[in-house]
Amino acid sequence: MHHYDLAIKNGMILTMNAFNTIIENGSIGIEGDSITYIGQEAKETVHADVIIDAKGGIVLPGLINGHTHAAMTLFRGLADDLPLMDWLNHYIFPVESKMDSEFVYLGTILACAEMIMSGTTTFCDMYLFEDETAKAGKASGLRCLVGEVLYDFDSPNYGSIEKGLQYTEWLINKWQGDPLVSIAVEPHATFTCSPDLLRATHDLALKYQVPLIIHLAETHHEVVEIQKKYGKRPVEHLRALGILGPHLIADHCVHLNDHEIEVLAEYKVNVIHNPESNMKLASGIAPIYKMLTAGIPVGLGTDGCASNNNLDLLLEMDMAAKLHKVSTMDPTVMDALTVLRMATIDGAKALKMDQYIGSIEKGKKADIVIIDTNKPHLIPMYNPYSHIVYAARGDDITDMIVNGNVVMKNKEILTLDLADIMTRAAKKSKEILGWLSFDKGG
Amino acid sequence: MHHYDLAIKNGMILTMNAFNTIIENGSIGIEGDSITYIGQEAKETVHADVIIDAKGGIVLPGLINGHTHAAMTLFRGLADDLPLMDWLNHYIFPVESKMDSEFVYLGTILACAEMIMSGTTTFCDMYLFEDETAKAGKASGLRCLVGEVLYDFDSPNYGSIEKGLQYTEWLINKWQGDPLVSIAVEPHATFTCSPDLLRATHDLALKYQVPLIIHLAETHHEVVEIQKKYGKRPVEHLRALGILGPHLIADHCVHLNDHEIEVLAEYKVNVIHNPESNMKLASGIAPIYKMLTAGIPVGLGTDGCASNNNLDLLLEMDMAAKLHKVSTMDPTVMDALTVLRMATIDGAKALKMDQYIGSIEKGKKADIVIIDTNKPHLIPMYNPYSHIVYAARGDDITDMIVNGNVVMKNKEILTLDLADIMTRAAKKSKEILGWLSFDKGG
Repeated sequence: MHHYDLAIKNGMILTMNAFNTIIENGSIGIEGDSITYIGQEAKETVHADVIIDAKGGIVLPGLINGHTHAAMTLFRGLADDLPLMDWLNHYIFPVESKMDSEFVYLGTILACAEMIMSGTTTFCDMYLFEDETAKAGKASGLRCLVGEVLYDFDSPNYGSIEKGLQYTEWLINKWQGDPLVSIAVEPHATFTCSPDLLRATHDLALKYQVPLIIHLAETHHEVVEIQKKYGKRPVEHLRALGILGPHLIADHCVHLNDHEIEVLAEYKVNVIHNPESNMKLASGIAPIYKMLTAGIPVGLGTDGCASNNNLDLLLEMDMAAKLHKVSTMDPTVMDALTVLRMATIDGAKALKMDQYIGSIEKGKKADIVIIDTNKPHLIPMYNPYSHIVYAARGDDITDMIVNGNVVMKNKEILTLDLADIMTRAAKKSKEILGWLSFDKGG
Repeated sequence: MHHYDLAIKNGMILTMNAFNTIIENGSIGIEGDSITYIGQEAKETVHADVIIDAKGGIVLPGLINGHTHAAMTLFRGLADDLPLMDWLNHYIFPVESKMDSEFVYLGTILACAEMIMSGTTTFCDMYLFEDETAKAGKASGLRCLVGEVLYDFDSPNYGSIEKGLQYTEWLINKWQGDPLVSIAVEPHATFTCSPDLLRATHDLALKYQVPLIIHLAETHHEVVEIQKKYGKRPVEHLRALGILGPHLIADHCVHLNDHEIEVLAEYKVNVIHNPESNMKLASGIAPIYKMLTAGIPVGLGTDGCASNNNLDLLLEMDMAAKLHKVSTMDPTVMDALTVLRMATIDGAKALKMDQYIGSIEKGKKADIVIIDTNKPHLIPMYNPYSHIVYAARGDDITDMIVNGNVVMKNKEILTLDLADIMTRAAKKSKEILGWLSFDKGG
């Protein structure tokens, strides 16, 4: 009789494996950080130190948020419904210029609390002071892929850009081999990074064999500017610089023509789709359906809280599924299963992490969440994929396991002091308002 | 010292009155079914039989769901991601043909539980066996405006159409003077109702001075069909029949040209916008921003659960705000306040109920909900409108008062036996699957 460290019983397991196998009334056995059993063995015979009862709910791989600026939780609702340049110049840039490491740690911890409570086990972050992001992610018990944002101008964290590259290299070495934290090289965008900087980031990523992450073709404005400056659209600009490849993760990709989609597919570039942010900022609608048809790995992200304004991937899935149906005028595109794969295994592929996360399979890391379906808005249940994408909300998540550790149990986060975080965040927001009025008044 | 039947204290009150007054740390006094005090009187001096502590959260008018087919909760997730005609002919019509009064009562009660838990105090319904809908709404403690769907073919409820008009008249008389239930006359659509039927419904609505409610210009297909049949687009067809007017509530209005928007504005027709359903069924994007500019009263609806798949107006607001930003490529349209008004006072206007609900004002009926903001995804708080539209979810609602009665307290529904409803709904879904396999097999 085998004995596991941890077991989950009595749930409908959506494996999200290559066959989309669903195991009704299944059990999962976990040893150390990994899944070592999954199946329908009579639950009485699955023994473990800790047993989690899924109570007839849905058990699925932890959700993967492919693009965040986690610490921006502290700007949630600070400025909405504004033209992009007004929003950036009068709100976001002024407050970001006053940011420090303590801000980023606090904002990220708040983000992690929200992500845990809404089912996200892995997030991919780009922001300032990312060592703090990594520390906060790890303290929360979440898995993360993070990198310092790099651009041509000075940063409140590292100062000049040479130091930014050094800081990134330091991050890579510091977190090497960590079970939860991975580091990426993250140039901000084509319009904020010189060709030299882009090439340098590419070289650094290849040197350490880590992902290279960039905002790409997010706005029409960007396309126009890059064409003006380099005579090429953003994708061709990156190709000319020699930095397209399977190590590249491109966020947004809203303004791509058919040729650019072909190029991204040819070079095996990965894409993260952020529908709510693209809608809220009126950036446009990314041609995701075409990218999927072209075979591009596409993950799903929320972007930062200032342009969303939450980190709830269950809501993001709903938005993604519906947005592309109406934009193509075809109700059959972006079906629920496709969208759930974007938030799990296909998101893992897009982040180059699918060897060890994204599905519930023997040998994979144990990153698992449980959805309570015993609620009026989740009854009756004909189709679990449809329920997750079209009916469920983040708060339906009750339990979370990351890397074999229980992070949330029965809606209680075990890794963080939630009340303390919320008190400190509310206090910090008063300080942030002070920064803004100083900036406006002075 | 005045004594109220019921009081709410210690919340940020969003009145949604004509000035959008916000009262921080305010109190509300309720006597019988009505609000008799609202202000900042020291909370120690507001005495009442029952006191609800808003705990520093947001207090706002109960949300108004302008268009539902409530009993369709029992079809939630039964069929998704399908072409419209396949969905209707192979799933919805076959199961609807087997429907009975017990089905509608159970489905509506389940819908009411979901609506209560997500902040909806008033819903406007069109379906079959609507006396059951009215009974279920009333048993739940919600306010509703309901009407039997009328069309040229036989109905499983009333049989032939003459009986349908009689049934509607019977409903009007039966529920006359009820404090919670109101009745409307509800022809299904231009393509399912003959000109004679449309005129008869109009006459009946005028006779009793009740609203006339119709699906209008929901799909491109409808526009083409009506043009072919009558040589006019749907709005002109209704105008030629003489039935446009302020008593008319038109659901969807997706396919309107600029001229039709002018006509609806001129005749003071009311519109209910259902963005999630229009997106999921790939019906199109209603030109809501233009309608608002033209001065048309626009409310917000979820439509039925088979095309959404939930009844959560907080999520619907988020979708509405973002959809129109991206469709107009202007981040300033459909700002959070405008959208929240659509789900409260402007929704009440569109349903002709704004004389007594839709805002928190002295003399209005006490239909009020409370949002708990002490949650990671609602911290910090810079702007309550932004929080409600962009960050909150239905489950953030903790308390509900309808017509002066407490319907939910601290997330516990006081009017319904939730566990029993969920058990019966789950059981019913097995029967429904049987109907489908019979229909397909036979």
